[in-house]
Amino acid sequence: MSTKSASKAAPHVSPLAPASIPDVPGIEGVRIATAQAGIKYAGRTDLLVMVFDEPVAVAGVLTTSKCASAPVEVCRQNLSGGRARALIVNSGNANAFTGKNGRESTRATAEATAAAVGCKPDEVFLASTGVIGEPLDAKKFTHLLGGLVKEASAERWRDAADAIMTTDTYPKLLTRTASIDGVEVRINGIAKGAGMIAPDMATMLSFLATDAPISSAALQAMLKEAVAPSFNSTTIDGDTSTSDTLLFFATGRAEARGCPAISDGSDPRLSDFRSALCDLCLQLARQVARDGEGARKEIVVTVEGAQSDASAKRIAMSIANSPLVKTAVAGEDANWGRVVMAVGKAGEPADRDRLAISFGEVRVAFEGERDPDYAEAAASAVMKRDTIEIKVDIGLADGCWTVYTCDLTKDYVAINGDYRS
Amino acid sequence: MSTKSASKAAPHVSPLAPASIPDVPGIEGVRIATAQAGIKYAGRTDLLVMVFDEPVAVAGVLTTSKCASAPVEVCRQNLSGGRARALIVNSGNANAFTGKNGRESTRATAEATAAAVGCKPDEVFLASTGVIGEPLDAKKFTHLLGGLVKEASAERWRDAADAIMTTDTYPKLLTRTASIDGVEVRINGIAKGAGMIAPDMATMLSFLATDAPISSAALQAMLKEAVAPSFNSTTIDGDTSTSDTLLFFATGRAEARGCPAISDGSDPRLSDFRSALCDLCLQLARQVARDGEGARKEIVVTVEGAQSDASAKRIAMSIANSPLVKTAVAGEDANWGRVVMAVGKAGEPADRDRLAISFGEVRVAFEGERDPDYAEAAASAVMKRDTIEIKVDIGLADGCWTVYTCDLTKDYVAINGDYRS
Repeated sequence: MSTKSASKAAPHVSPLAPASIPDVPGIEGVRIATAQAGIKYAGRTDLLVMVFDEPVAVAGVLTTSKCASAPVEVCRQNLSGGRARALIVNSGNANAFTGKNGRESTRATAEATAAAVGCKPDEVFLASTGVIGEPLDAKKFTHLLGGLVKEASAERWRDAADAIMTTDTYPKLLTRTASIDGVEVRINGIAKGAGMIAPDMATMLSFLATDAPISSAALQAMLKEAVAPSFNSTTIDGDTSTSDTLLFFATGRAEARGCPAISDGSDPRLSDFRSALCDLCLQLARQVARDGEGARKEIVVTVEGAQSDASAKRIAMSIANSPLVKTAVAGEDANWGRVVMAVGKAGEPADRDRLAISFGEVRVAFEGERDPDYAEAAASAVMKRDTIEIKVDIGLADGCWTVYTCDLTKDYVAINGDYRS
Repeated sequence: MSTKSASKAAPHVSPLAPASIPDVPGIEGVRIATAQAGIKYAGRTDLLVMVFDEPVAVAGVLTTSKCASAPVEVCRQNLSGGRARALIVNSGNANAFTGKNGRESTRATAEATAAAVGCKPDEVFLASTGVIGEPLDAKKFTHLLGGLVKEASAERWRDAADAIMTTDTYPKLLTRTASIDGVEVRINGIAKGAGMIAPDMATMLSFLATDAPISSAALQAMLKEAVAPSFNSTTIDGDTSTSDTLLFFATGRAEARGCPAISDGSDPRLSDFRSALCDLCLQLARQVARDGEGARKEIVVTVEGAQSDASAKRIAMSIANSPLVKTAVAGEDANWGRVVMAVGKAGEPADRDRLAISFGEVRVAFEGERDPDYAEAAASAVMKRDTIEIKVDIGLADGCWTVYTCDLTKDYVAINGDYRS
């Protein structure tokens, strides 16, 4: 996360951006408004308010950083209540490592929001993203809250995704439908990246909402399950943020349309919903990876045949976080020796002489040496693609995992280096 | 390690190179020769032979990679004998992940060297550095060995350091003297970097020799102790090599000058020698960090007040391997919020509200927020230096550690990206 230099970054859009940003319909019970509060950025929105006119169920996963931001602490506390009436998010300042001032800022924000909505401060959820260590002056936006809560409307999910961006080059929003006991419900989600991304519970910021009548306990169970193979399997630079926050709100409005209220996350009637949620999280997480700072290629690393799934994930992360693997992909260089290196350094069970490595459908290494049929041209052709699939078979057992990352380009260094000199 | 593109790298020398490469006198009992074998590079030496006319004591530490190279396996095996008669090193090909072919290559090399020297193959130590996964044809150089062993002479340490370079921009060699029981002995050392450096037992390649009469067991004990705060506290890109090899040879020739033979590493008469060895290792390791691929600044990260030394080291490594910290230093940006992030993600005991952070002598953060006396100008002035000292006080206990790294620049990406596209 490098908002400090965001204004200097080239105004380009990631070559991996979707062809068009999808239209996302509203979720019953959710109203949205955004504003230009001028917290840091000029000429763009930087404040998001999401209002729930009735209390909604809420679940969340938060950063495991030992230096978590002030709003993360507020969310952690408020999640125990399981009820939400509002979400307020700003970009441009992370309100992290801001000490007493930071706590004062979150308190003032929650109180002002509660007053505008007509609820208790502990029903207000907060998130902030941007530069770390600079005091966040809540007065910059608390006077706007009354008006925003009034004007908020259902159809503004695109605005919401826009307002939370920092160095993202495109807004990330998706919608899915699922059937619960024959009733169609909807899940919407937004997310933002684009650096300091190596989520240890969730990505920088992502917010989901559904109209399904699902309890906070059931939501929490499903969210935790969905996060493991999606956000928590994404890395841009191995740098876990102080502010990672994923919140999921369920308004329950579909109950009026006959959808049964469900309080148990393992209820079999949730199977389609669970699939939709997992898919939504995975696609949002991939969008974050595809918009990594400076990214020109997506890298999908799959490790099979490891001692366990956890072991496969650690090996896959070792590959996905290797600067040498990432720069090789940036250079369209099928440098599989660096994949060998990354397997070797992972510290997980591996037998060099059983390893097989493929780039796309081209197997480049087999049984501990270069594949006898290796042809540089075939591997190089794979490297020209937008998405580079690296598959490693450890050859020991059945553990497997997939992680998502992007290449490391000079633009990442430029975006984050500021180059004052 | 990115020899693949070494020839494309700008022929510049690191701005952090020493003003002059030191003259290093010979070590009695060590003869050196180098050659242009044309293994990969043109117009430069790429083969080093070190000959010990009498058997010498040898100690070593090797990579912990699960995908260790063929020569690393040979060294691991031969170290159990504790005796050496020759060392042979090539650059341009790592002979790693080369399967049966790799083992055949090391066998042929050891046998040819043994024949030239007149010793057993298991008294020959091998190391290779360069591209991973390409078969190394020993025939490219075995015919040269007879001549090299004959012509080898004592004063050629500079030639040795030159021959083992890959993307290094300057040769790394140092000499120290120490007194053992009133007799002066000498330690020489050479090392090479410059990418794939996050040693887990030793750096890519480093070779030390002394004329002191010290047993292999005593050498091993001292070497292990010296490696922890030096090579094992160095990182360039967090990418641990398949080939890390540090070998230390003791010829014992100083015994003729009255130096006592010592077989116990904890012998108090070794205290000055131990200090000299630690200093030599530390300065060689720092030279490796200062010549990291693309480096323009050295970063020295010191963590104090951690729960333990091990905890301090893990936090320091989290900072030193953070792409966001490294790019900020490249941009001369006193972005201490990224240091907070790296402390937070390390997973070690830390209390955000006790943290203090300094850049050089400028304290930028204190008790969990920006230092009340923080002045951007003072911090920015520190960032213009060649060596950036980052000090973090965790404020919990007495654990401390220092690690050495370099900044992350566009040149790192260029050197390793190849940019075929």
